Parts: sequence; structure tokens; C-alpha cells
Amino acid sequence: MPASADTLRIDVARLGARLEALGNVGAIAGGGVCRLALSDEDRAGRDQVVAWMKTLGLSVSIDAIGNVVGLRPGLEAGPPVMTGSHIDTVRTGGRYDGNLGVLAGLEVVQALNDAGIQTRRPLAVAFFTNEEGARFSPDMMGSLVYVGGLPQDAALATTGIDGATVGDCLTRIGYAGGAPCGKASVHAYIELHVEQGPVLEAEGFTIGAVEGVQGISWTEFTVLGVSNHAGTTPMRLRHDAGFVACAIAHHARSIAREMGGSQVATVGAMDLSPNLVNVIANRAVFTVDLRNTDEAALQQAERRLHAYAGELAAAEGVTLSSRQLARFEPVDFDPASIALVEQIARGLGHSVKRLPSGAGHDAQMLARICPTAMIFVPSVGGISHNVREFTCPADIEAGANVLLHTLLRLAS
Amino acid sequence: MPASADTLRIDVARLGARLEALGNVGAIAGGGVCRLALSDEDRAGRDQVVAWMKTLGLSVSIDAIGNVVGLRPGLEAGPPVMTGSHIDTVRTGGRYDGNLGVLAGLEVVQALNDAGIQTRRPLAVAFFTNEEGARFSPDMMGSLVYVGGLPQDAALATTGIDGATVGDCLTRIGYAGGAPCGKASVHAYIELHVEQGPVLEAEGFTIGAVEGVQGISWTEFTVLGVSNHAGTTPMRLRHDAGFVACAIAHHARSIAREMGGSQVATVGAMDLSPNLVNVIANRAVFTVDLRNTDEAALQQAERRLHAYAGELAAAEGVTLSSRQLARFEPVDFDPASIALVEQIARGLGHSVKRLPSGAGHDAQMLARICPTAMIFVPSVGGISHNVREFTCPADIEAGANVLLHTLLRLAS
Repeated sequence: MPASADTLRIDVARLGARLEALGNVGAIAGGGVCRLALSDEDRAGRDQVVAWMKTLGLSVSIDAIGNVVGLRPGLEAGPPVMTGSHIDTVRTGGRYDGNLGVLAGLEVVQALNDAGIQTRRPLAVAFFTNEEGARFSPDMMGSLVYVGGLPQDAALATTGIDGATVGDCLTRIGYAGGAPCGKASVHAYIELHVEQGPVLEAEGFTIGAVEGVQGISWTEFTVLGVSNHAGTTPMRLRHDAGFVACAIAHHARSIAREMGGSQVATVGAMDLSPNLVNVIANRAVFTVDLRNTDEAALQQAERRLHAYAGELAAAEGVTLSSRQLARFEPVDFDPASIALVEQIARGLGHSVKRLPSGAGHDAQMLARICPTAMIFVPSVGGISHNVREFTCPADIEAGANVLLHTLLRLAS
Repeated sequence: MPASADTLRIDVARLGARLEALGNVGAIAGGGVCRLALSDEDRAGRDQVVAWMKTLGLSVSIDAIGNVVGLRPGLEAGPPVMTGSHIDTVRTGGRYDGNLGVLAGLEVVQALNDAGIQTRRPLAVAFFTNEEGARFSPDMMGSLVYVGGLPQDAALATTGIDGATVGDCLTRIGYAGGAPCGKASVHAYIELHVEQGPVLEAEGFTIGAVEGVQGISWTEFTVLGVSNHAGTTPMRLRHDAGFVACAIAHHARSIAREMGGSQVATVGAMDLSPNLVNVIANRAVFTVDLRNTDEAALQQAERRLHAYAGELAAAEGVTLSSRQLARFEPVDFDPASIALVEQIARGLGHSVKRLPSGAGHDAQMLARICPTAMIFVPSVGGISHNVREFTCPADIEAGANVLLHTLLRLAS
């Protein structure tokens, strides 16, 4: 590697221009983006990124589930050091979620090209199909198939919220590729992503060295009580579905507070029936979202929640049922890769905080087949999945430089 | 009065047929009724009752707020002895609440007509607009305007949950009448109603001689927080409008339990935004219904609720606002009228219990301008504001006969 490699830096203006150009594909009011997976807008975004890959000299391959990998040869053959993310968005998404990781990868390639640096190992920049899950379930579908975690045929047969299948949509937009899928060989995977939470900004850090991804448990509870008059029914004779729902929501917060650590608990959705001021609710449907980086702790939170809910329902004389809407175990990233990200960030003069990811990412799938880590940069106001999603150019520059030098080290 | 008056009885089959016919207007699954105030269904119900009034020879007048009074002349002129109630319902209402009082009044008229009895004073059967308050606040609006407790123009300008105003809706359904409103002159008012609570059935009484009405306090709270990702936002950085709403609902139950006595507390309506499983709610709107027979105790409950809500909102970093949807002090009925109901019920061979009403009734408004009392009959299972609301025919017959003879005595 030339002596200049240590002082090499990415060009944030060039990266910002690509972010803006891609953000204009499927742009919506307020500065956001709507490129649902495998839609016409997603095709237009894919075409743009593939064109950039080719201009940069990458060898582009598309696999059967539509994942796109741009390969830059190394001095030696073998599995590549990979970076990437996704370019599909939620319906009211921002310009950074996913896109930053892919375009920062391209910027790293361009910086290396301009400096005439060839790495020992090959480098790859990938974007994976349907990370968001906003049109097709499950989310992180493309990377899950890529690592062999979901059969290709099952993924292709998945029906979306609009009735279309993944396979038909891939064919329609011209991204049903021929590359092998499900038996990938990758030397290491590093993903740059916006935090999508408030921690880095609130605590004044520039770089997050992500230690892993929280486990996720989503439960929908249905409480059936007895509607009755709010004035004439003594408290001791009530079977109040709304009270039970609110008490469980209140208790979910207590569980998170008492357990501490990374445990979070959210009741974001609740519907009471008949939902009138003077009628005791006979029905309440609500969700509880529990997350923890530790699987045993997450299971403990689930047990505590269900135990409380069951006891309260019995005491109130209501019927309680529940169903699991989603359940993913926590993922731990590779300790050496986390340490490398941290060391390189410090070496570049940035403040670094180790933290878990509260959201799911393609990196958690890649972690099944190779050493993996992630780099987070701050999200202003912690806002994401929102047209107001924003990350400052200085933080983007810092994150992309950490990505550059982490990839250089892994590929050398 | 002819000698036959003492042995006169109402015809419960005829009353039951009218209850069934009116119950079929706006019928919903499970045997219930949905006739929200001033809706198309309410209009159809009103048209049916007005048609019956005219068939019975009553002189029908409609006032500016849509109250309907059917007058039966007496041997002398002067203020009438009035009975009545309401025919609007909650969204999932029963067939008895309100309807029984109006239709029992018509049955009394028909029994007097058939027996050729003319009373000394005029008799009137009324139904008042928007007693339930399920579409427009406050409840008991029509009777409140009727007794001069709310300016007619303010009532007409009231906007309902669907954005329509009382005035526009009255015009639309053809019940914006021309009769004077707000300066009523009534000799006495007796209202028959289902208990809507479990006390009479549980203690084995047929007739309730109602001593008064609990004070009612309805508050709508709006909590404004910050929407954020349910996975990436640490508990300590949350401004969760949904949590604050649920915690206040939970605390309202605690207040009622700790205060005891007649204090009740209900959170029947709650709406979260954006109401998604993995997004912290940025907005919660919910209602708290507090009631007590003692005004000082009711004020104490209100103070405790607002103090807790204010402290919690500050701790969570959310904005809390509230508005009073309804506020009525406890009402005491006329001791002589209560005693008369009790005496007549015993004379007819029925068991009688004196009790307060937990629900608001038009009678509490009429009590401002004339001697007033109410007759309760048992609600099976204490159930009301529910499609399963039911009162046995034998109890309906007993209550309507007590109404008949109480009105006869007051009008003689």
C-alpha cells in the first residue's frame, strides 16, 4: 500500500452530491423519499447506483433475490471485504437511512481509485433487497437470503401489502439476477449507517462503534371486558378492558426502568372500544414492543410482562389473549471488528461511543457468515423513518473516513 | 277524577311493543341501538315518537334546540305535570336507556285516554335533545337549555366529534323548532329510567326512589410528546405521550379506590398518534370521567387527578393540556316528590329502595325549575350503554304503574 494511504480522505462534497441525487429519485414533500422495495422508484434508484458502480469500474453482479454487489479486485483473489446497506425506504423515509452506507462505499472506492491504491483483498459494495420490510415481510429479506437464512424460493414467493410477489416484482423491474444466492463468501463486513436514535447527538459523540443489534419482541394483546355505564357501575364490579390495557402499558415502562441496561419497552398502538367518555371499554387492543441486547434479559422482560398481564386480567375479570407479531434474538458483532472501528475513529480524532443498535440492519444477517461491525453517525434529533431525517455533513465525512480506513485495514 | 282511577293500570304489552318498534330504529348487532344525537337514525326515532304523540292526541311542540313536548290538556290551564326522558343513544346503546321514560309517558297518556280520565293539570311527555353527549358535549344539553342553564346560541354552535354543529344538524334533520326555549314553566317533573347499575337487582328491589344525581366531571386531556423509534430511543430520553396517557388512566383508578364511597373514575376514550407498534406516540388524547354524590369529594378527586397529571407531564417532558367537557354538581331531588314515589310504589305492593343515581339524567336539569324526582327499575346485571341492556317486563310494568299514579297524584 502506498505511503499516502494513511492520509487518504473521502470527498464529502462528492458524497453529498450522490446523496442528493439519489434522494431526488422518489422524492416526496418535506425533503423525504418514498422508494418502497421493488417499486418503479426503487428500480430508478437501483439503475442510478448501478450506473455509478460501473463508472467507478466495479464489476456488478445481481443475484436471484435482487441483491447487487459491485466488486473491486484486490492484489489477491479470495472473499472480499464488503461494505453496503440498502436503498429501499419506508413510505415516508429520509435520504440517509441505508443510502448513506451504500454511497459512502462508492465514495471509498472513488477515493481509492483517485489515489491509485489497490488493496490486497478485493473490496465489495453491496445493496440488499427489501431491508425495510415496508412492502414485503420480513424486513432484511435480501441479506437474509444472501447468507442462506431464508430459502430463495420462499422469499421470491412472498406476497406484499399490495398483493404482488417478490419474484414477479424483481422480474418486472429487471433485477431478477443470475448470480448464485445463499452461499456467499465474505471476508468481513462493515456497514456505515445513521444512528436513527438520539444517543450520539445527546451525549456529544461523533462516531458510534456498534456492538450488536437488540433483540426484538413484538406482542399484540387483546383484552375483552364488559361495557358498562361509567357512572352507575361501582369500581369493584367493573371489567374494564381499557384500564387493564393502560395498566399493562404503565407496567411495561416499570419493567424497562427496573431492568435497566438496554431494555426498552414501548406501547405505541392502542385502540379502545367503544371509545366513549362515559362507557367502560369492553375491548382494548394494544401492542408492546420490547427490545434488549441480551436474549436472556429479553426473555425475562417478556415473562414479567405476561405474568403481570395475566394476574391483572384475572383480578379484573377480563379475558386476555396475545399473539407474537415479531421476534428476533439479539445479534453480537465481532469484538475485533468493533475494536478496530473504535481504534480507527479515535486515530482520526473523533469521539467514539460503543452502543447497541435498537433497529435491525443488514449487518446482523452478514454477522452470520463473517466478522461484522457497524459505524453509526448521529441523527439530528434522533429522528428517522421521517422526511425530517438529517445528519450533518461533518458527521457524514467523519463516518465515511472511518469506513474508508476500517476497510483499508481489513483489506490489507 | 273518576273512581276507576285508583285501579287504573298501564298495558305492558303495548308499552313493550313500542319499545321494540323504537329499538328497531338504528338497530345494531346483538339487540342494541345506535341513534347518536341528531343523526339520521335519531331523526327516524324522533319521527316515530312524534307520530305516536299525534296519534294519542297530544299537541306537539318543538323548540329551538330540538326538544319535543307533547301536551295533554288538563281541566285547568297552567304549567303541566311533565314526564319524559331522551331517545338518543350512545354508539353501542341498549333499547331501554331514555326510551323507557319517554314511551312509558306515552303509555300513561294512552291508559288515561282509554279510561276517559282528564287530569286537573295538563300533562306533558317530553324528550330532550342530546342527553347522552356521545356526539356533542355537554350531555343533557337539551334539558339544560330547556331550563335556561345554557344559552341557546352557545348550544347551537357546539361542534360534535365529527365536526358538525348542533344547529346545522337540527336544521338538516328538520328539528330546529320554533317554540320558546330557556323559560319553561313546569309544575313538577317525574322521570322513569332504568337504573343502569347493579344495586336494585343485587339487593332484590323492584323500584328505586331516586334521591339525587351524582356530580359529574368530564375532562379531556391532550398530551403532546415526541415521536421516535421504539428501538433506538433510550427510556430516559423519551417524551412518550402514550405512556403519560396510560399512567394517568392507571392513576385515575387509584384515586377512586383510595377515596372509596361513591367515587368512580373511568377512562373510556383514548387515541394515540401515529398509533404504530414501533413508534413512540407523539400525541395522546383521552378522557377522564369522575363522579361523586358529594361535591367536595368530587373536587378533591379532580385536584388529585390534575396534580398527578401535571407532575407526570413535567417529569416526562411532554406538554399537557386539558379542557372540561362537562361539569355538573351533585343534585338533590325534591324530598316531597321522592316520598310520593316511595309511597305510591309501596301502595302498589312493590319493594322500594332510596338510592342516588350514578348517571346524569334530564331530571337533574328539570330539578332547577320545579319539584322533581325519578323512578328507577332494575337493569339486569347492572348493564347499560351496551347492546345487552335489559329490564324484565314485570319491572317495566311496575315502574310504569308507579309513574302513572305519581303523575295522576301530582296532576290532580
